[in-house]
Amino acid sequence: KASKLPDVKTTIFTTVGNLARAHNAIDLSQGFPNFEADDKLKSLVTDALNNGHNQYAPMPGYFGLREAISEKIEILHNRTYDPENEVTVTVGATEAIFTAITAFINKGDEVIVIKPAYDCYEPAIILNGGIPVYVQLDAPDYKIDWSVFQQKITDKTKMVILNTPHNPSGTILSKWDMEQLEAILKPTNILLLSDEVYEHIIFDKQTHESASRFNDLAQRSFICASFGKTFHVTGWKVGYCVAPAELMKEFRKVHQFAVFCVDHPVQRALAEYLKNPSHYLDLNNFYKQKRDFFLEGIKSSKFKFRPSKGTYFQLLDYSTISMEQDEIIGKRLITENGIASIPISSFNVNNRNDHMLRFCFAKKQETLEQAVQILCKL
Amino acid sequence: KASKLPDVKTTIFTTVGNLARAHNAIDLSQGFPNFEADDKLKSLVTDALNNGHNQYAPMPGYFGLREAISEKIEILHNRTYDPENEVTVTVGATEAIFTAITAFINKGDEVIVIKPAYDCYEPAIILNGGIPVYVQLDAPDYKIDWSVFQQKITDKTKMVILNTPHNPSGTILSKWDMEQLEAILKPTNILLLSDEVYEHIIFDKQTHESASRFNDLAQRSFICASFGKTFHVTGWKVGYCVAPAELMKEFRKVHQFAVFCVDHPVQRALAEYLKNPSHYLDLNNFYKQKRDFFLEGIKSSKFKFRPSKGTYFQLLDYSTISMEQDEIIGKRLITENGIASIPISSFNVNNRNDHMLRFCFAKKQETLEQAVQILCKL
Ligand SMILES: CSCCC(=O)C(=O)O
Ligand SMILES: CSCCC(=O)C(=O)O
Repeated sequence: KASKLPDVKTTIFTTVGNLARAHNAIDLSQGFPNFEADDKLKSLVTDALNNGHNQYAPMPGYFGLREAISEKIEILHNRTYDPENEVTVTVGATEAIFTAITAFINKGDEVIVIKPAYDCYEPAIILNGGIPVYVQLDAPDYKIDWSVFQQKITDKTKMVILNTPHNPSGTILSKWDMEQLEAILKPTNILLLSDEVYEHIIFDKQTHESASRFNDLAQRSFICASFGKTFHVTGWKVGYCVAPAELMKEFRKVHQFAVFCVDHPVQRALAEYLKNPSHYLDLNNFYKQKRDFFLEGIKSSKFKFRPSKGTYFQLLDYSTISMEQDEIIGKRLITENGIASIPISSFNVNNRNDHMLRFCFAKKQETLEQAVQILCKL
Repeated sequence: KASKLPDVKTTIFTTVGNLARAHNAIDLSQGFPNFEADDKLKSLVTDALNNGHNQYAPMPGYFGLREAISEKIEILHNRTYDPENEVTVTVGATEAIFTAITAFINKGDEVIVIKPAYDCYEPAIILNGGIPVYVQLDAPDYKIDWSVFQQKITDKTKMVILNTPHNPSGTILSKWDMEQLEAILKPTNILLLSDEVYEHIIFDKQTHESASRFNDLAQRSFICASFGKTFHVTGWKVGYCVAPAELMKEFRKVHQFAVFCVDHPVQRALAEYLKNPSHYLDLNNFYKQKRDFFLEGIKSSKFKFRPSKGTYFQLLDYSTISMEQDEIIGKRLITENGIASIPISSFNVNNRNDHMLRFCFAKKQETLEQAVQILCKL
């Protein structure tokens, strides 16, 4: 019996995480906070548990949460999604991405994937018989050349996957970028899967240019987001997808049979918590302080870097320190120096080596201090 | 753009549930309790939330919960599953079923589905290009004729889906049944997907004959179970799958990219709660009292029935009252008499009419009393 995913090995996050634990290293690898979520949010879950919200939520999500999501998007991007037919609560952004791909990709369909990329797009494409078509961006600025992008489009292209703010590079797409994409897709029927899980982590007075802000993109887009990333609760596994009703109809057919619905008490809590927009609007500032502290410390190290513009990741270029492979130096930093990061090669086409490591700064002050100390000694 | 699931309409559970709410009917349709879960279990979730278990769980599940699952199966069925490689925590049994099918079914593979059946098997098969091959059981006893079953096996058969205790009929498979299946599958490479979500709800001193009790079945089986059903928390969306390591390896590749992992605080709570086996062993008795109360009341009605042997469902044969279609009488009972049930036709091949309605007795005493009153007046 042949595997349907022969190329899937243990994920880099598990490999690095295990090695970090074994060497008791400062862990800036996997993207999750090591500080606690807001007690208010946790006590809202307890309230929901105790108020009898322990049976199935509606298949597309608790309606109050769908309304709150719709309001959030209206506040931020001035577009209305109908909570009844255009918003679905998902098991994290991962399920949203998997479900959108599964609902629409058929054997032979091409899907454009911009690399470096987080590891969940490609297996979902392959499981559905689709063909990933790569646009590899180049260090150190990881900018999209839209004429290169356009050349990848064929009459088999069914979907484009975009991720802004971008993991792992910490770049963001500008209004101009989104307009280039819009112009390219306008004459086609190509769908857009817009992974916007870091939508609320964006620095230096820039704006998150959500696909929902662009008419011709929004009408063909699945926009995926994550409450785990936004509210420091990656373990609660709740995210959402918004899309025009006719796309959402097919999305929900897969969602219904893949998971049926999402944790109900957590949905009740999030609906309540979202009523105060500062809970997500304050996030930029919260993470800017962490980024700035980390970069201020790193300034006196040998690493080269461009400040992250969004996400809670910072790339560091180690080519002034070593010309080894990302994976090798990444491993040595764990075993010899006690600090863990993610080698960018694992996100690139053919594991191309950029001499870049990704550090997650969603960490306590104390952890960041220890990390800076180690990195400055290298 | 053609739909990948053109035949999926709004599920019967949503349709009936909405109609029941609109008419304020006593709702014995969808399978979930209307009483509360154990406060102890809920406060264990609160503890986990407050003790910092809010980030990603390991992809295959919190190890303590995997150990607890393995111990439970050892206690009940005397088979050992290695928590490291053979147990995976899933987003309810639904995700377990979807994932097992997605990991192994390819275009053209045949999957044997015994009808009447719950509605989540077929869409998962079809999404993966598989072909459902039906064995339709007959009212009123819904017994499997194993020689009929055997005739459905071809060289394209890749998987058999079994469900015991059986939703909707309330029948259970005996040791003899399982041995017939074992003998039929022994000379083949056919996989078994054993949906055992009602494993702890079985009456009259019978035993749940889990596929894990039969060597030649266990080695080819995915066994799927549900903490939602067992602990009265269908809205928490946690279940599990156990399978031999080489099957589980492929299962986890799909699980990883479909959802990555499952709600962490809930997993911590369940691991603790499972330490007391009476929490699941007492369930038989708990539901037997509900079944017996419901049947005692129904005895003086015009319905014919065979007592449910497992699950929390009871079929009632209404042919002495009306010869109409299940769907029509089901609807009329809601709109005119104020009681909701599920028409069995919706679980049968070609919606065959059996003059049977399914009633869920996982309800408060008070709800069952009201239901009995209405049903006895018909
Ligand atoms: C689910 S593991 C990955 C978390 C993450 O988003 C990352 O580290 O890139
Ligand atoms: C997820 S809706 C169905 C609940 C159930 O198992 C049933 O009613 O059969």
